[in-house]
Amino acid sequence: MLLEETIARIGELDEQAQEAARRRSDNLTKPPGSLGMLEDVAAQIAGITGKSLPWLEKKAVITMAGDHGVCAEGVSAFPQEVTPQMVLNFLRGGAAINVLSRQAGARVVCVDMGMITPVDAPGLVVRRIGAGTNNLAAGPAMTPDQARAAVEAGIEVAIQEVAGGTELLATGDMGIGNTTPSTAILAAFTGFPVAMLAGKGTGLDQPGVQRKIKVVEKALRINNPDPRDGLDVLAKVGGFEIGGLAGVILGAAAARVPVVIDGFISGAAAMIARSLAPRSVNYMLASHLSEEPGHQVMLNWLGLKPMLHMRMRLGEGTGAVLAFHLIEAALRILREMATFDEAGVTGEMIL
Amino acid sequence: MLLEETIARIGELDEQAQEAARRRSDNLTKPPGSLGMLEDVAAQIAGITGKSLPWLEKKAVITMAGDHGVCAEGVSAFPQEVTPQMVLNFLRGGAAINVLSRQAGARVVCVDMGMITPVDAPGLVVRRIGAGTNNLAAGPAMTPDQARAAVEAGIEVAIQEVAGGTELLATGDMGIGNTTPSTAILAAFTGFPVAMLAGKGTGLDQPGVQRKIKVVEKALRINNPDPRDGLDVLAKVGGFEIGGLAGVILGAAAARVPVVIDGFISGAAAMIARSLAPRSVNYMLASHLSEEPGHQVMLNWLGLKPMLHMRMRLGEGTGAVLAFHLIEAALRILREMATFDEAGVTGEMIL
Repeated sequence: MLLEETIARIGELDEQAQEAARRRSDNLTKPPGSLGMLEDVAAQIAGITGKSLPWLEKKAVITMAGDHGVCAEGVSAFPQEVTPQMVLNFLRGGAAINVLSRQAGARVVCVDMGMITPVDAPGLVVRRIGAGTNNLAAGPAMTPDQARAAVEAGIEVAIQEVAGGTELLATGDMGIGNTTPSTAILAAFTGFPVAMLAGKGTGLDQPGVQRKIKVVEKALRINNPDPRDGLDVLAKVGGFEIGGLAGVILGAAAARVPVVIDGFISGAAAMIARSLAPRSVNYMLASHLSEEPGHQVMLNWLGLKPMLHMRMRLGEGTGAVLAFHLIEAALRILREMATFDEAGVTGEMIL
Repeated sequence: MLLEETIARIGELDEQAQEAARRRSDNLTKPPGSLGMLEDVAAQIAGITGKSLPWLEKKAVITMAGDHGVCAEGVSAFPQEVTPQMVLNFLRGGAAINVLSRQAGARVVCVDMGMITPVDAPGLVVRRIGAGTNNLAAGPAMTPDQARAAVEAGIEVAIQEVAGGTELLATGDMGIGNTTPSTAILAAFTGFPVAMLAGKGTGLDQPGVQRKIKVVEKALRINNPDPRDGLDVLAKVGGFEIGGLAGVILGAAAARVPVVIDGFISGAAAMIARSLAPRSVNYMLASHLSEEPGHQVMLNWLGLKPMLHMRMRLGEGTGAVLAFHLIEAALRILREMATFDEAGVTGEMIL
């Protein structure tokens, strides 16, 4: 029921606040529209928060970890032991997501959604749905109950963050092998040929990518996920951290908190969220365009535009947290820039 | 002679420092190359500064203003009085560049390179080459002596900044009408048809863009700038602030200080700088891809890749200063991330 209640609580954006932000933006000392996406982001956040001059002080990235049975097919360049090793690295502050979050003034919330091996470490949020998914090339990745439980766990994590005062959220992932379920989700929703979507992930060579394409094609054939049903897609070809992140997005949207989507795996979670609650996309901001070839297709399907083109392909939430600064810039522009009147600058066009 | 001396002082990047940065980057807890341009930027700055773990504390954007005789042809949506009005806005801290520089912890250095009307305001650096350029659609925009003086003034401004301790520079511009000379410079160096390069600037309508195309075509025909001679191109179809910014770039390169290039007008200055000193491009970082249709052609010619795709078209240095944060992120990653050994993470690929 938590899932259905959350979906029902996701409302429309506040048009009045959005309009007020646009009007102010057009009176600032610059040609109308000349700050491009900075102006769009400010208006969107006004619409999300219902404030015409919004400000987002407390920020967090929720980085969710899980393991994937499909690794048995040889679809990742790194061994599965890296998943818990990296989670410990997150908790000690040594990973890329920690460095970028310190710079952005954001907290890192690390959640075990279902690694093969549990780790006992202070600071880890434990919401394990299972000890890794099943091999999606041999049957469903998880049961329908597990799919629902993963999404609802994510909703609860988001609710808890928002209750603690967090005003801006980002999604991040850690899970060796997880570009494979993400590619399957993307293919299931869009119907695009898998060969157009699959990439090298953390560093596959060309034969590895070819193997991954066959694995995803087989997964779709034997599982036949229903693209009209986000939970079915998640259960059959998804992952625990992907379901959890879909829940984080839905929970953020229901609480009117903007949520910045990281790269390819977070994007797959965003597709699940959108299929469960179409309005949830209004609460999403895309951060960066990743190196995974399918990522542009994914963003097009979501109707989102990435701000950063940095050829990143790490995950963890790194691209999303790097974009926090751009969101802050958008809000500062709205609050701090002088208007034409205040500055005595001619705002009338002559041509 | 200052120009020739400066060009002679621009050296190769320090390969050893660059290699050391790359090696460290490959030992950090992430797949090699997975942070994309963040890794490239860190290595480039290591090469520029000669330090394998560089850090850039003091930052400034040099925003140069000038007026353009070509405005008589009706090529800008805003009247020329806006140039000095905006300069006063910069000095009072109310413009977009001020807001973004405060966020980035950077100083704004505003330079009058030759507005029609001088303004008397504390904080303004006055390096006036003339009271606006001549109409480049009726003859050369300036004399050869003025072109050299503009570039040398920019070199001196950069030298002074670096002497004051600035470690990271950005370029910015203000000058009603200055997308027209920038388009002419781009067409002169690349030989591309003007109609493929010209855009709406601050907000021209379609007939305005058509008029601008004719003006640039005429300017190139009657002035016949020599693309092998950067000073000739600047004199015939350039602007005072464009020449000054070319000098800033050369001065930064000679002092081994990285310089972040803003959008279309700064890019035209970067083309002049590269044509005078090909090595200077190694010291440049592109910030954003602007809405001006010719900007991608310009960046390709310079061999630079933009990090931000935000549909911005304001100038002032706004895109460049927005990218300071990404450069800081690149350097932080190199300094603060744990290595595979430190974190106990398996760094060996299995496939």
